[in-house]
Amino acid sequence: MSKIAFLGGGSFGSALAVLLAEKDNIVSIYNRDENVVNEINQMRLNKKYLKDLRIPDGVTAFNNIDKTIQEADYIVLSVPSHVIRNMCKAIKGKVPNHIPIISIAKGIEEDSDKRLSVVIEEELENPVVVLSGPSHAEEVAMKIPTTIVSTSKDMKYAIEIQDLFMTSYFRVYTNDDIIGVEVGGAVKNIIALAAGVIDGLGYGDNTKAALLTRGMKEITRVGMALGGRLETFYGLTGMGDLIVTCTSMHSRNRRAGLLIGKGMSVEDALKEIGMVVEGVKACKAFYQLKEKTGISMPITDGLYKGLFEGKDAKVIVDELMNRDKKSELF
Amino acid sequence: MSKIAFLGGGSFGSALAVLLAEKDNIVSIYNRDENVVNEINQMRLNKKYLKDLRIPDGVTAFNNIDKTIQEADYIVLSVPSHVIRNMCKAIKGKVPNHIPIISIAKGIEEDSDKRLSVVIEEELENPVVVLSGPSHAEEVAMKIPTTIVSTSKDMKYAIEIQDLFMTSYFRVYTNDDIIGVEVGGAVKNIIALAAGVIDGLGYGDNTKAALLTRGMKEITRVGMALGGRLETFYGLTGMGDLIVTCTSMHSRNRRAGLLIGKGMSVEDALKEIGMVVEGVKACKAFYQLKEKTGISMPITDGLYKGLFEGKDAKVIVDELMNRDKKSELF
Repeated sequence: MSKIAFLGGGSFGSALAVLLAEKDNIVSIYNRDENVVNEINQMRLNKKYLKDLRIPDGVTAFNNIDKTIQEADYIVLSVPSHVIRNMCKAIKGKVPNHIPIISIAKGIEEDSDKRLSVVIEEELENPVVVLSGPSHAEEVAMKIPTTIVSTSKDMKYAIEIQDLFMTSYFRVYTNDDIIGVEVGGAVKNIIALAAGVIDGLGYGDNTKAALLTRGMKEITRVGMALGGRLETFYGLTGMGDLIVTCTSMHSRNRRAGLLIGKGMSVEDALKEIGMVVEGVKACKAFYQLKEKTGISMPITDGLYKGLFEGKDAKVIVDELMNRDKKSELF
Repeated sequence: MSKIAFLGGGSFGSALAVLLAEKDNIVSIYNRDENVVNEINQMRLNKKYLKDLRIPDGVTAFNNIDKTIQEADYIVLSVPSHVIRNMCKAIKGKVPNHIPIISIAKGIEEDSDKRLSVVIEEELENPVVVLSGPSHAEEVAMKIPTTIVSTSKDMKYAIEIQDLFMTSYFRVYTNDDIIGVEVGGAVKNIIALAAGVIDGLGYGDNTKAALLTRGMKEITRVGMALGGRLETFYGLTGMGDLIVTCTSMHSRNRRAGLLIGKGMSVEDALKEIGMVVEGVKACKAFYQLKEKTGISMPITDGLYKGLFEGKDAKVIVDELMNRDKKSELF
């Protein structure tokens, strides 16, 4: 039995908190919204994020970070990418150095272009483990068979976390390529957003399959340039997560793209979704990276121009379809 | 302007016939069913296969193979995989040796386990070009942006066919790995059938993404053992076609799997679909190949036992989920 503290009570964090509590661990959740805290503790529900999830008694919510992390054996950072650094600052000096920090966000730090584990390492001296893969929170909460990957610089911790989370419906694989896992998880949100736009424009499954296939080329190209490995990008955290994100209505990235493809402004689409859409942030970050490094990212480039420069999406698709004829291998 | 003869008037053949006729070619279609022939020639429709397709005057249907292939510059074999050999025998000695034969079926010959281009080469001396990729006929007929791959042992012909079919909505790439294109196109139907079963059982997007990702490992493992190249399997004809087949209701393989997952017998499901389901044939063929060669194909093995040995599908999924914990890279 371990004590696990979740910093952030969003959908994936809540689903994992319940999973761990049902494995007889003691789980605490920090949330800044007192209504969410009360709802979890009194109603055993978290309706905003997972309306059908029943939260067992082993989970306690707090409105106070210090109380949440008290005596924790593991800390899970379950906040969006742009909050990670501040959350680390908030617990600095309060957590013994040997306690593993588990990161479940998918993204890259805006402006700095840093992977999230790097951000955590800059703020804390603890070992960092990243959990990533095709795992919609809604389905984990329903105990639908799900696979995920545990990765760390030191595989001892990745294996420890594999054991912590593994259940009969939640299969955890390990992978020692933390760069590949994090970069793939961030870039796939860009392609998922673009896939939503394609759907919103009324294009078909053929078009989306082409986008995903060419999108995978883009993920591997930038990912390998950043030090990740090809087989990781074609594994669960790259291709697997891309597929689930691009085909499921659970995906905020895809839903945001869908609204934009139907003609809604980016601002209104984000407001309509009401939660953080990581793909928009990732598109900005990787567009900047692409501009700095010259790595070819035609889909990211097209999406950026559609999102932030008002370029017509149909024109972007036409341009992608009507380049010179070529071999698919380059 | 060329004259192109289609042997077989199914959905994909009809969609391509219309595409070529609209590029001002002369197109003939052979169909063994006189009603289909009359419907095409008189009503300019082919309702059984593509109910909304309007067939232009440049297309003429025949009930006679010899009339169909008369003076053809290109011959398209648009019949299911199990009819390919007999169709080749039927035109043997009637087509000049320099006329390219274009194969658009995806499968493998039952019992012999031969790729379809090999079957064609055994019967005819003509150059063979294979067209494959994520291209549901229904969407090609609607001019929805689609990508496809042209491949041949002699790339001169692959490029000729690229030019023949390329339009603003139908983008043709070349690839010189004919083995990879054909094997990927055949095995992906097995995974698509399994994906349908997963959907029919009521599992979620997480489960399907895991199946597709692990399915890609299976495709590359057997495909590379047979001489194909990794990058082909992760291109349009492998991964791209797998995605479109597993996520679209246009796919007969997925629809058949869906019915089976819901509890229908294999025979009844095939009757319900009413068209050839290549994944069932491919599952048999690759199961035999796996037994002979010892190549690891856990999904094909599980599907075979579910389809032909009455093993319970939920048990198969449970077994796949609860193997020993491992790294995802092996």
